[in-house]
Amino acid sequence: MDDQVDYVSGKTRVFGIVGDPIEQVRSPEMITAEMTRRGHDAVLVPMHVLPDDFDDVLPRILRMRNLGGLVFTIPYKARAAALAAEIGAQARMLGVINALGRGQDGRWRGDIFDGLGCVEAFRRRGIALAGKRVMLMGAGGAGSAIAAAVAGERPSSLRIFDVDAARARALAAKVGGTHADAPTVDDVDILLNATPVGMLDDARLPLAVEALPPRLVVFDAIVKPEMTPLLALAVACGCTTVRGREMMRGQIAKMVDFFYAC
Amino acid sequence: MDDQVDYVSGKTRVFGIVGDPIEQVRSPEMITAEMTRRGHDAVLVPMHVLPDDFDDVLPRILRMRNLGGLVFTIPYKARAAALAAEIGAQARMLGVINALGRGQDGRWRGDIFDGLGCVEAFRRRGIALAGKRVMLMGAGGAGSAIAAAVAGERPSSLRIFDVDAARARALAAKVGGTHADAPTVDDVDILLNATPVGMLDDARLPLAVEALPPRLVVFDAIVKPEMTPLLALAVACGCTTVRGREMMRGQIAKMVDFFYAC
Repeated sequence: MDDQVDYVSGKTRVFGIVGDPIEQVRSPEMITAEMTRRGHDAVLVPMHVLPDDFDDVLPRILRMRNLGGLVFTIPYKARAAALAAEIGAQARMLGVINALGRGQDGRWRGDIFDGLGCVEAFRRRGIALAGKRVMLMGAGGAGSAIAAAVAGERPSSLRIFDVDAARARALAAKVGGTHADAPTVDDVDILLNATPVGMLDDARLPLAVEALPPRLVVFDAIVKPEMTPLLALAVACGCTTVRGREMMRGQIAKMVDFFYAC
Repeated sequence: MDDQVDYVSGKTRVFGIVGDPIEQVRSPEMITAEMTRRGHDAVLVPMHVLPDDFDDVLPRILRMRNLGGLVFTIPYKARAAALAAEIGAQARMLGVINALGRGQDGRWRGDIFDGLGCVEAFRRRGIALAGKRVMLMGAGGAGSAIAAAVAGERPSSLRIFDVDAARARALAAKVGGTHADAPTVDDVDILLNATPVGMLDDARLPLAVEALPPRLVVFDAIVKPEMTPLLALAVACGCTTVRGREMMRGQIAKMVDFFYAC
């Protein structure tokens, strides 16, 4: 009938993404699509909660009985960890979560999926991280999650660079990697960019090189543009590339697994 | 793209229907359809809140900045009134609301739309209530809202029957009608059924008649079945009929007006 839509009803399980601001998030259209594709009657909606309201409002939102789970984005990944009754190993290491799922026992479980999305993207492309020499640029939120997830794959080495050397050292200590004074592609099999350098109209590269060895696998966490300056150089040099959008897809798949199985 | 849906994004304004139970509600598919038809980027989702949680949870849900409004169903129409900073005249008379809308000044306004939906259904059909002799059967939640809204149309008389005579008397006193000891079609222009008699597989009529005068306009608030025993008799007798689904459409239109203009 034309007086009703077919994608939401009283039986639909509700999910949310909580952030401030909220309008720019992509989870509503992408996670809803993935849940629907798997046959779940579910929708993920934006939930704009202000920082002053977060601690008072979020525990109450969790009491909606048909709420299946929440995704957390800026600036709430650290504060959200306090909402979880149980927390995954990588999230515990980093002290942040980006998803809460309702366990079959009714308890809320938290975990972080940014980094797992990166590992999943590699897995889907059949590129092993185990035993490889990995160079990671960027030790912020995304970089930290990627470092923790990649470390779990047992690379032979994981070097971490950040313009904030203290931050890179702290992350290296947490995940069992080493700090690098500068990004390099010498003795590196896999180069990961988790800095914002190259985002949108930024034409810069995150490291000072004019060419990349063709044996290198180059990953960029940036989603927009899909072809960053780093990836464009990698393609021109004959390297294998893994894109930010593949990490996003991997993350969405892992989150939906979590929402329906945790 | 097939990895995203087109009906929800970070910019989508979120609405909810709050009740217990929640799975049977029709507002998600119907109100979402009406908002979308009018060009609004909006979705209404079910929110299952338990009675023990209501007073603690609802004020916090209202602090979601992108929440446009809430609909309330069983058992919350009375308790929801306390959430409104301002309340409409009919809702104040009845002490119940079934919708909260966020005013442009940020204050939450409450009103009741069941009865306005009935009046709107008559207006759409070009049938005046002003100056008419109205007989209403049923003085429960739906009947009360219909009585208040119909009274506002200035019928020449409004007689109210309920199997609970005290309830009928109290409602008649509130809305300026009169109590009837039994339902009748004598000296009646418009007969309104707001009792559950005739719902689903109930083959009974809400009043003891074998025929109806063809000059009568007969309305039934029941939505399922669309053709109740009362309406079937009315059609057989040549009466004009107005159906529950028309009231529902009228109510939805009035609610969406309210959400976007209150």
